[in-house]
Amino acid sequence: MAVYTEVSDEALADFVAQYDIGQVKSCKGIAEGVENSNYLLHTDSADGAYILTLYEKRVSPDDLPFFLGLMEHLAARGISCPTPIHGRDGRALRQLSGRPAAIVTYLDGMWVKKPQPDHCRQLGQAMAELHLAGADFALRRPNALTVGDWRPLFNKCAAQADSICAGLGEEISQMLDELEASWPADLPQGVVHADLFPDNVFFLNNKLSGLIDFYFACNDALIYDVAICLNAWCFEPDLSFNVTKARFMLDGYHSVRPISSEEIAALPLLARGAALRFLLTRLHDWLFQVEGAFVKPKDPMEYVAKLRFHRDVNNAAAYGFD
Amino acid sequence: MAVYTEVSDEALADFVAQYDIGQVKSCKGIAEGVENSNYLLHTDSADGAYILTLYEKRVSPDDLPFFLGLMEHLAARGISCPTPIHGRDGRALRQLSGRPAAIVTYLDGMWVKKPQPDHCRQLGQAMAELHLAGADFALRRPNALTVGDWRPLFNKCAAQADSICAGLGEEISQMLDELEASWPADLPQGVVHADLFPDNVFFLNNKLSGLIDFYFACNDALIYDVAICLNAWCFEPDLSFNVTKARFMLDGYHSVRPISSEEIAALPLLARGAALRFLLTRLHDWLFQVEGAFVKPKDPMEYVAKLRFHRDVNNAAAYGFD
Repeated sequence: MAVYTEVSDEALADFVAQYDIGQVKSCKGIAEGVENSNYLLHTDSADGAYILTLYEKRVSPDDLPFFLGLMEHLAARGISCPTPIHGRDGRALRQLSGRPAAIVTYLDGMWVKKPQPDHCRQLGQAMAELHLAGADFALRRPNALTVGDWRPLFNKCAAQADSICAGLGEEISQMLDELEASWPADLPQGVVHADLFPDNVFFLNNKLSGLIDFYFACNDALIYDVAICLNAWCFEPDLSFNVTKARFMLDGYHSVRPISSEEIAALPLLARGAALRFLLTRLHDWLFQVEGAFVKPKDPMEYVAKLRFHRDVNNAAAYGFD
Repeated sequence: MAVYTEVSDEALADFVAQYDIGQVKSCKGIAEGVENSNYLLHTDSADGAYILTLYEKRVSPDDLPFFLGLMEHLAARGISCPTPIHGRDGRALRQLSGRPAAIVTYLDGMWVKKPQPDHCRQLGQAMAELHLAGADFALRRPNALTVGDWRPLFNKCAAQADSICAGLGEEISQMLDELEASWPADLPQGVVHADLFPDNVFFLNNKLSGLIDFYFACNDALIYDVAICLNAWCFEPDLSFNVTKARFMLDGYHSVRPISSEEIAALPLLARGAALRFLLTRLHDWLFQVEGAFVKPKDPMEYVAKLRFHRDVNNAAAYGFD
């Protein structure tokens, strides 16, 4: 939960007056999102509901044209995602309370706390549709958290890693060696969401209604997005792997964008990489907790368990797909 | 900001199905309120927006019929405040995720971060209207934080009070002696809100649009509510007293419900009591901070300064009213 930047009444009124969205009726900070300040904005316009986001320090202002442009690009191609609202001056991005800020459309739906196989199938389909729709997006953003970025992140944590779990430092170091030596460079590339966790996927009456939070989106191997979702959607609360959920997700994806044999072969390795990527950021945030922060760091051990699972997978058949 | 209790999709759907408010379209935790979990609920009904509240540990379940009944009573008499929605079984209060929970109407408007004198005038009027509308409310709830409750609260903090400010323990102790000896018992009684801070008063285009958060409401001297608002609305950020705001507030109140000479005479004493009440709860929450709590305690020194101001007031003329 997060509202980091307070907005004064006058600043809000001045800000909203630059858009054709009517007068503000209410504006409430919402307890979702860990990177930015999000407000649910009600106005007297026909649409009535919007999300106002103030971008906080962890988002680079240089990346905002990519993120906002991507949402607009995807929405224009039929992907249900927040669409930036343009002001009368044509701009979607401006300043509010000293922060870059934007208003986007409001999406109905809620995230699913306990995804079932059919949710995973729909997620797979929507992810593939996103990948197809992103193919002709003109801007580019390299993945800032890919294989080459993991060792510097690990080096910051290495000395303390064993305080979380005995032997963890050596375990991560060996996995880094393996991934750096064999990370594939020739898989089909494109725009990936890179953070399609359940809380970023909305459903309405068990039908997928939208994707949100594009603030990690980047160019990378498309199948890496699938590898992230294998980690984020297909483990049970006890951290056992649910192969049925994985199979539904992969089948859903494949029905929209066929997965190539090279992509299938790379999946276990990419799933290890995805597990390590979230393990490392969680380990970092756990070891370097910010005093007085609103957001409680997530337990890195969850991703140690997931990494170990993928380490023992030799073949994508273990994911129910062949 | 606060969302303490998570609600599962199934539990939410089952809960909402007991009301005639349509199907859930979205449900977002909002970062307001420090006592309870509040969700902004959108449905496909004509009204469309509601607040879903789960009552957390600091609210006694025994008090909920008073709070919900009061909001309904006041709303029926034209006070703009959240109104409980009744289920098809007639009940406004039921259980959700192991907590007492209710759905109330959504109020447009926003709280004012920097109240101006005219906001204070409107607050005074609305508070007096609330007092008149509450006169025939049948249920009763004694104030659980009145003069007799302050010494037990202070005793829990006394040993550490001087760690906040040298001499604070003795200063509070003397004030308690004075207030216990002279607290008036014969002022006009009725239902008071008892927590009408700026964040509980909504405005829309600088016109008061509603009062929220009745979870401290109780029976007490009506003028005590005014004394609380002298503290909550009439000091500047540098803690200087703005007599213009006080005068506007008292004039606004008096124009709707005339303040008697006895009430005027008691106002300085009650303002000291109100300052001490908030000083003591803040001191307690400051000294006994809960590890990992989402809500950062408020600085008790703000109310030390306010208490000292009222201690030096001999006559309500200092509040711009005579």
